Amino acid sequence: MPLIHLRGENMIDNGIKRVLLVSNSTLYGSSYLDHAESEIRDFLGNVGRVLFVPYALYDRDAYASTARERYRAMGYDMESVHEASDPRRAVNEAEAIFIGGGNTFRLLKSLYDFDLLDSVRLRVEGGMPYIGSSAGSNVAGPTIRTTKDMPIVQPPSFDALGLVSFQISPHYLDPDPNSMHMGETQEQRILQFLEENDTTVFGLREGAMVRVERGSTVLKGSSGARIFRKGYAPAETLPGENLNQFISPNTPEVRQMEEITATELKQRLDGGEDLQIIDVREPDEYEIARLENSKLIPLGQIVNRMDEIDPARETVVHCQGGKRSAKAIEALQRAGFAGRLVNLKGGITAWSDEVDPSVPKY
Amino acid sequence: MPLIHLRGENMIDNGIKRVLLVSNSTLYGSSYLDHAESEIRDFLGNVGRVLFVPYALYDRDAYASTARERYRAMGYDMESVHEASDPRRAVNEAEAIFIGGGNTFRLLKSLYDFDLLDSVRLRVEGGMPYIGSSAGSNVAGPTIRTTKDMPIVQPPSFDALGLVSFQISPHYLDPDPNSMHMGETQEQRILQFLEENDTTVFGLREGAMVRVERGSTVLKGSSGARIFRKGYAPAETLPGENLNQFISPNTPEVRQMEEITATELKQRLDGGEDLQIIDVREPDEYEIARLENSKLIPLGQIVNRMDEIDPARETVVHCQGGKRSAKAIEALQRAGFAGRLVNLKGGITAWSDEVDPSVPKY
Repeated sequence: MPLIHLRGENMIDNGIKRVLLVSNSTLYGSSYLDHAESEIRDFLGNVGRVLFVPYALYDRDAYASTARERYRAMGYDMESVHEASDPRRAVNEAEAIFIGGGNTFRLLKSLYDFDLLDSVRLRVEGGMPYIGSSAGSNVAGPTIRTTKDMPIVQPPSFDALGLVSFQISPHYLDPDPNSMHMGETQEQRILQFLEENDTTVFGLREGAMVRVERGSTVLKGSSGARIFRKGYAPAETLPGENLNQFISPNTPEVRQMEEITATELKQRLDGGEDLQIIDVREPDEYEIARLENSKLIPLGQIVNRMDEIDPARETVVHCQGGKRSAKAIEALQRAGFAGRLVNLKGGITAWSDEVDPSVPKY
Repeated sequence: MPLIHLRGENMIDNGIKRVLLVSNSTLYGSSYLDHAESEIRDFLGNVGRVLFVPYALYDRDAYASTARERYRAMGYDMESVHEASDPRRAVNEAEAIFIGGGNTFRLLKSLYDFDLLDSVRLRVEGGMPYIGSSAGSNVAGPTIRTTKDMPIVQPPSFDALGLVSFQISPHYLDPDPNSMHMGETQEQRILQFLEENDTTVFGLREGAMVRVERGSTVLKGSSGARIFRKGYAPAETLPGENLNQFISPNTPEVRQMEEITATELKQRLDGGEDLQIIDVREPDEYEIARLENSKLIPLGQIVNRMDEIDPARETVVHCQGGKRSAKAIEALQRAGFAGRLVNLKGGITAWSDEVDPSVPKY
């Protein structure tokens, strides 16, 4: 018999809960968990032994052996719950837990079959570190209603661990504008979810992670997340952002974005005004063409490197065409950057068109 | 209370059951149901009025109005079950039923909420024509365990109508070899389904349909289907093929495929042998380059136009590189074509390389 039923929405975050939710186990071009290694090591710290939950894949032995080898390489011992004579006791005695990816329905059904949900919940409430990857991130939310997996088996309920009060939709894939496929995109499916549910959804792109610690929910990794809330347009968020604001019912509105044209910027610079220019493109783009006296901070790093921008000076942010810089400004504002931020309309392309044709377009 | 529970696996096909299952409601580049119109008209024949089930989408009124307009344009009156004061009675009195696409979980949950599953099953057993599209095709199978939809609501069970004994996986999307996305492909997800279930799965590409009539299950439409069975490698099937063989437990093995090189073919033609050459490429490819005395029957039409191939003559089948012609030969053999079929190795490209460089390569 489960002792108590805690549900995500009603959980009071006691500040000792520690959860790391990874979108995907393997990132294109690298090996199993490579992209998450530094975050996992930082998160686990001096934990000695991790309990693995392999239920999301069919071949549990093979899966446990892969995970064990990978965690050993990071310096952690690993026990798999499927080898334990008493799975609940294994959970109750674990130092930390890692639930791997695979099929979310299969995973959740097994958690019910072995009656582990309450045990895991209680331990995480008590401060045991929880790492989930893909399906293992999905089941950390209140329900599995935002999975993309096929319902190959039927769990008794879609209700999941509820360790966090938001839903994860892992492997978030942006719509492909060139696609001729007419099936719903992940965005359309999540919007259908919001037709029937109120819970905030974090669409975690591959490479993205969410880390919950000391009561704050921070986006980690490399690729950003798309946030879906009932009654709001989807929002883009960047690594380093605190996502608590999207979970709480009262979301502060982003300020109206200031813009400047290339011609105006040229006039103000010629007039000797002290403007700080931040370029949020990638290094290879900066090599091709750049504005004089601009500082490069790629979009994906902008929140984490916020302290390199002087809030006392007016800041013009630019990219190639003006879209990435707008995202950067929104993210900086949400992150609490106090200075004045102005978006260069049309980006460096407009600068080349209006001001200086010698700046190459690409 | 449901009167009886019929399950797909145990249903005896009485030969009067008529079911048309469409992969997708809208094909890229055309309007709602355009690609299925001729098949729907042929299937419904002189039916006057069709009952529509709009439960898969949130806005039932809007959905019913779209469907009604489209069916009116085909010459059919349409009533929507969500407007009926007694939905079960509406089903019991319907001449034909059309269940539209959207979210499969939402659709199935509503069918349970309104207690319609047994009514629909009984009517279809009694000969009422059933048309499903996308989610509406999914629920025609024994379960919804092969849907790609998000489980945004929880139906009491994944068990569905069981009108047919196979599973449909609609909007079947082939893996993209250039993708950097690491989430499971639809093929991988269906193989996970087969780890847990024994039922045959038809992966219906957009543009494909399955028509069940007089006890036979025929693949229709333009784009073919991929068939998944436990213990077998996935198989490719073409429009016009009878799929019953994949549902029955004993599947005949395809014969070993004969091949011929371009050089050998040239020698045999020069020797005056009577060989029939069938080109299964598309018309625009035939315009660019062709073999002398070859007959064009594009791959997607090969089964339906089988009677244009003389089984008394030896037949060489070719395409650009040899893959489509191999599929054509397998499909013709499964369809019972009695003549000798030989695949041109390397296709017309090999002919250009080995025999006649004046034939353009593309």
